[in-house]
Amino acid sequence: MPDFARLDDFLESTDTDGYLIDADSTDSDQYYLSGFDAPDPFVTLYDGETHLLFPRSLEFGRAKRESRATTVERYVDFDHAELVEEHGSEAAVSHVLARFLESYGVDSVAVPPRFPLRTADGLRARGVDVTPDTDGTITEIRATKTDEEIEHVRAAQKANEASMQAAEDLLSAARVADDGTLQYDGEVLTSERVKEEIEVTLLRHGCSLDETIVACGADAADPHDRGSGPLTAGEPIILDIFPRDKTTKYHADMTRTFCKGEPSDTVREWYDLTERAKTAAFDALEPGATGADVHDAVCDVYEAAGLPTLRSDDRAETGFIHSTGHGVGLDIHELPRLSPSGDELEPGHVVTIEPGLYDPDIGGIRIEDIAVVTEDGYENFTEYEQRLVV
Amino acid sequence: MPDFARLDDFLESTDTDGYLIDADSTDSDQYYLSGFDAPDPFVTLYDGETHLLFPRSLEFGRAKRESRATTVERYVDFDHAELVEEHGSEAAVSHVLARFLESYGVDSVAVPPRFPLRTADGLRARGVDVTPDTDGTITEIRATKTDEEIEHVRAAQKANEASMQAAEDLLSAARVADDGTLQYDGEVLTSERVKEEIEVTLLRHGCSLDETIVACGADAADPHDRGSGPLTAGEPIILDIFPRDKTTKYHADMTRTFCKGEPSDTVREWYDLTERAKTAAFDALEPGATGADVHDAVCDVYEAAGLPTLRSDDRAETGFIHSTGHGVGLDIHELPRLSPSGDELEPGHVVTIEPGLYDPDIGGIRIEDIAVVTEDGYENFTEYEQRLVV
Repeated sequence: MPDFARLDDFLESTDTDGYLIDADSTDSDQYYLSGFDAPDPFVTLYDGETHLLFPRSLEFGRAKRESRATTVERYVDFDHAELVEEHGSEAAVSHVLARFLESYGVDSVAVPPRFPLRTADGLRARGVDVTPDTDGTITEIRATKTDEEIEHVRAAQKANEASMQAAEDLLSAARVADDGTLQYDGEVLTSERVKEEIEVTLLRHGCSLDETIVACGADAADPHDRGSGPLTAGEPIILDIFPRDKTTKYHADMTRTFCKGEPSDTVREWYDLTERAKTAAFDALEPGATGADVHDAVCDVYEAAGLPTLRSDDRAETGFIHSTGHGVGLDIHELPRLSPSGDELEPGHVVTIEPGLYDPDIGGIRIEDIAVVTEDGYENFTEYEQRLVV
Repeated sequence: MPDFARLDDFLESTDTDGYLIDADSTDSDQYYLSGFDAPDPFVTLYDGETHLLFPRSLEFGRAKRESRATTVERYVDFDHAELVEEHGSEAAVSHVLARFLESYGVDSVAVPPRFPLRTADGLRARGVDVTPDTDGTITEIRATKTDEEIEHVRAAQKANEASMQAAEDLLSAARVADDGTLQYDGEVLTSERVKEEIEVTLLRHGCSLDETIVACGADAADPHDRGSGPLTAGEPIILDIFPRDKTTKYHADMTRTFCKGEPSDTVREWYDLTERAKTAAFDALEPGATGADVHDAVCDVYEAAGLPTLRSDDRAETGFIHSTGHGVGLDIHELPRLSPSGDELEPGHVVTIEPGLYDPDIGGIRIEDIAVVTEDGYENFTEYEQRLVV
């Protein structure tokens, strides 16, 4: 059960009666506040207790069984049919919603910044005060994980390591053709083939994922390139895998960089430097430190070696050109930030540490672990070994 | 290239300067209007031409290459830094957006019903007229597919049939234990195991999916139950698979019902009846007919056999208790509806036909094909054979 004390404080300090979400459960704030997974939009009101409202009866029984809500109701419980008769089907919805809020004595609501306009306009027309919560209070609360959520991430990371192993095995088993491309099973080994192996392994472990990065050579020099085509010997190959457990919905995240055959001296040097940057980041990771402190620790290592960072040059296009990490949970990217704008870290924050170096002429190197901030430091969930040459 | 003539008509008839979307491309209206796939929210303005606006430079180059937009711009192109200085980072966004609209002479915009409230409030504060488009005009336009979109669905259906074959093969190869459960590879064959086989096969064919239905016995009697646990002989097993091609983003959809060993007379009778209902629906499927006509054809067959439908009894909990079908495209459920509220069908509508019968004491039967409405009838994409006993 999440701790909504911070939400109570927010409502009290802004003199607002309740917090309202209208979304399906792919919206992580909705899933977190309602404790309910449904593919179609529904409404959650928090006023110290949690109340759900569904358009139809379809999800009603399941919501009563599975959600943590105090009450579960349907449009039909607020005279929906009569209101359609009187106002038409479009306007009836806002009348139903206004009656729902009224039944809990709620005249004013805070809503997430991306709350649907039609619903807000309808409620305002019924005299309800609707204010976008630009602080994203629920998203803030989600940053601090309960013990149960921490176990979910740890379990997803176990599956993640199995898929990384499957990918590494494929690279290890490949042979190098005369033209330098990797060959496996009589075919050119491509980024796509390695991704397929990763995804199949994750499926076998109850996880899914939309995207994986298997990027080689110049592809790897762009941190957002997913990678495609034949893999080549002697060049660093970045594998960044971020699956979601299909049951718990929590993510994991890990990156390793491999090289088939002998890397250049620069690649080897960058790899060692990135290992050191990762160590420096973990040395700085503790409650009370800020995400900015951890990011600075990485920049210090790279800059001392004479490499550009966005801190030393905000227009840098090579070197360390992204932030050090991010929170991981129901969303793959969530709070806290380990970046120049990173705030104070707290026990229960689950974060990635992922320093890296990029240059189109050299390729890309990134090493990423996932860890939780504890009372006296951190615990790293990542057990996968680090080695460059496979 | 989609045909936006209907959008032009809408803007003209409502005397609105432009259509505005603020969403990431998991919102199918955004993906369709922008022609661009991006994981973070961006803004699309349609005013006869298409204009994209991105917060940062990250997606700028790719958007210029990959989207079909006439112009691609960034916050920085509208004095973002100065506006942050002057108004703070929160308010600066609405000033940037207002300047973006102003640069195209746009004072009034229609927006999708679920357009984000914060963006709408910000624009209204800058004097822009923002009206939710309760007709969902883009969603309406998406119902009619281009030849290219039709080929995307057809290709996804090919992958879908490969995964259905893998699942059927598993059921065929299973043996029946003394307690009636299916056994495969020395283990009880479960719904979860069959789903895994389906999903792995789809991955190997470039498709992904969030959910699959493999539901046996009483599970199958609830059309929304995904199914779980051991599969049993002598009971109908519903397999409903609806993958998405990872490259094109278009879906397919198909259901078959299998029985391992001998089904009861009632199950056999229901299966034959459902085959006949499906044929009746296809006989009614042509341009000019309505979705309601097609739905009625199915109800006629079931009611003539003395079985309840929601048409004959709107509180029915057994019999034919859902609609006949739905549109399929970027979303797995989209327009048109093949239901009591189904409007006129047009060439290019891609729809499912999926009659079924349900009763907790008997189980569930459903057979579903996917087809496109053509100038003179329809073309069924589904080549997978129909047979009950495996």
